[in-house]
Amino acid sequence: MKKHNYSAGPCILPQEVFEQLAKAILNFNGMDLSILEISHRSAAFVSVMEEARALVLELLGLEGKGYQALFLHGGASLEFLMVPYNLMRENGKATYLDTGTWASGAIKEAKHFGETIVVASSKADNYNHIPKNYEVPTDANYFHCTSNNTIFGTQMKSFPELNIPIVCDMSSDIFSRSLDFSKFDLIYAGAQKNMGPAGVTLVVVKEEILGKTGKHIPSMLDYQQHIAKESMYNTPPVFPIYASLLTLQWLKKQGGIKAIEKINEAKANLLYTEIDRNPLFRGTAVTEDRSIMNATFVLNDEGHAETFDKLWKAAGISGLTGHRSVGGYRASMYNALPLESVQVLVGVMKELENKI
Amino acid sequence: MKKHNYSAGPCILPQEVFEQLAKAILNFNGMDLSILEISHRSAAFVSVMEEARALVLELLGLEGKGYQALFLHGGASLEFLMVPYNLMRENGKATYLDTGTWASGAIKEAKHFGETIVVASSKADNYNHIPKNYEVPTDANYFHCTSNNTIFGTQMKSFPELNIPIVCDMSSDIFSRSLDFSKFDLIYAGAQKNMGPAGVTLVVVKEEILGKTGKHIPSMLDYQQHIAKESMYNTPPVFPIYASLLTLQWLKKQGGIKAIEKINEAKANLLYTEIDRNPLFRGTAVTEDRSIMNATFVLNDEGHAETFDKLWKAAGISGLTGHRSVGGYRASMYNALPLESVQVLVGVMKELENKI
Repeated sequence: MKKHNYSAGPCILPQEVFEQLAKAILNFNGMDLSILEISHRSAAFVSVMEEARALVLELLGLEGKGYQALFLHGGASLEFLMVPYNLMRENGKATYLDTGTWASGAIKEAKHFGETIVVASSKADNYNHIPKNYEVPTDANYFHCTSNNTIFGTQMKSFPELNIPIVCDMSSDIFSRSLDFSKFDLIYAGAQKNMGPAGVTLVVVKEEILGKTGKHIPSMLDYQQHIAKESMYNTPPVFPIYASLLTLQWLKKQGGIKAIEKINEAKANLLYTEIDRNPLFRGTAVTEDRSIMNATFVLNDEGHAETFDKLWKAAGISGLTGHRSVGGYRASMYNALPLESVQVLVGVMKELENKI
Repeated sequence: MKKHNYSAGPCILPQEVFEQLAKAILNFNGMDLSILEISHRSAAFVSVMEEARALVLELLGLEGKGYQALFLHGGASLEFLMVPYNLMRENGKATYLDTGTWASGAIKEAKHFGETIVVASSKADNYNHIPKNYEVPTDANYFHCTSNNTIFGTQMKSFPELNIPIVCDMSSDIFSRSLDFSKFDLIYAGAQKNMGPAGVTLVVVKEEILGKTGKHIPSMLDYQQHIAKESMYNTPPVFPIYASLLTLQWLKKQGGIKAIEKINEAKANLLYTEIDRNPLFRGTAVTEDRSIMNATFVLNDEGHAETFDKLWKAAGISGLTGHRSVGGYRASMYNALPLESVQVLVGVMKELENKI
């Protein structure tokens, strides 16, 4: 029996993708070779890379708008460093919005790099909301934000309109909701939520913002080098990229972002409605900033934890334990999690209520 | 029918590893979850990481000698940058041996970082040999070399004895031959030859050489940070690491490095003997520096190329075309390539001779 996998990432991917991948490991594309043993320069893999890069732009509605999609090594954490390397100018400065652990990690790397202004932070409230009504200095080189905060269960519902480049870490909600992605100049995302397995990072960048720092950028950290080499500056993480392509193809078959967004909203509504209705639970994020990807909630009486934990585990649910920074529970409802899994969780929450 | 896969990397891995991986993608460890959808913080994956790190040190004979094994993102190319970041001191300098394309890439990154002395180079001879009898300044912060040059088919058979740290890029021959690995202070290797699929990089470092630069190191580039976080500073490339663990377990079952070295020597001897015997072919690397991993050779008469190419393709051989920097052919005989595949290739070379 497959689990109802609420893991925060790496996380559930479509079952049909797992099946395609298992086949490709034994025999890829009828080549009598495993996907793991072919050259990244082979025609078969070059075509995987090209299709994946094009499909990213297609799904985000960014085709023909001056963007490049790159599949890089390093995880989003390496982007914390690459962003200032590529965008912060000699004697320049950067602005950041501090909405959680990852935003804070990005700020830390930028501060070592140059002047870094934190325009607002919700740290004092344990990041339970998204700061609003902040000012962004218009002479900064860029503004950086984190669209969804996996750990704290908050999500930016709107983004500032600025005359400087907007950089967004969308690791945990890319491909999950409709946005005008052309309002962003640089989007990055670790694959391991809605795009694929751990081990590859997506960067979508508007080319015109690059090449302006006046400083040397080490080759592996230089977006322009990766663009010039068509995302194969060095041997790319072949398997995670192929898995990402299959996941994106699955998304396209579901009807793309608009279609999956409806399902994601239905899942989130179902769960938040129960969190708000059930007297045993309460949500930890401010209502208006609740994430449709990661719902964080706690028991009003911790004494019921043992019973609740037994119930959800018995129901085949896994990965529901909250991050230590918040405690309680976190239900990560990424694209591949079926509505049925949320129905099972809500059923267990009601069952607990009936038992108590 | 499985191919005789001579690909230079990503390359052949043991067939039993492919079979184990295909199963783990559908159901890992009987958890009813795919290896691709479990948290990297789960007990199951933490144990994979711990076992893989320990097995590396065991196979290299480095247990209890002050070394740490790390599985990082980025490929060996990111190590070109991490090495100077972690070892080059304020106003310090580094020394490099230039034996090929990758050595030269490492030198390029180091030069942007600080004073970088190339102690010797075989570039003028299209890297057809390993330079010898060079002097290494004893006041440098480290000496860097590349043990095997995939593209040019050369391999270092001995290493200098120095009183400064020795750093070695062993991407294409690690785990293939017996060496006193304790003579090296830092070894790194992209996985995609003898260790696993593309997408993870092994770093084996003697801890005592770290923490001495007196300069800030960005978190993701800092070996000490990765050591402190037990190789999980950020989400690691889960699947490539698991595939590496299985490949290392396979190596141990074969009898470890000493046992595989004998087979590798038998494969290399068989092929080089035929290259030297067969009047149609000649090797491109100087005999004493020939690599047991990558044999580079050309036809004396290019006019026979079409016939030869047809023959080896018909025999089920793939990946034999040489790198454009050398031309001709390159037979990469990594650990997982069976002796039988070399017998097939040698048979085809003899067949060509009989045909002409």
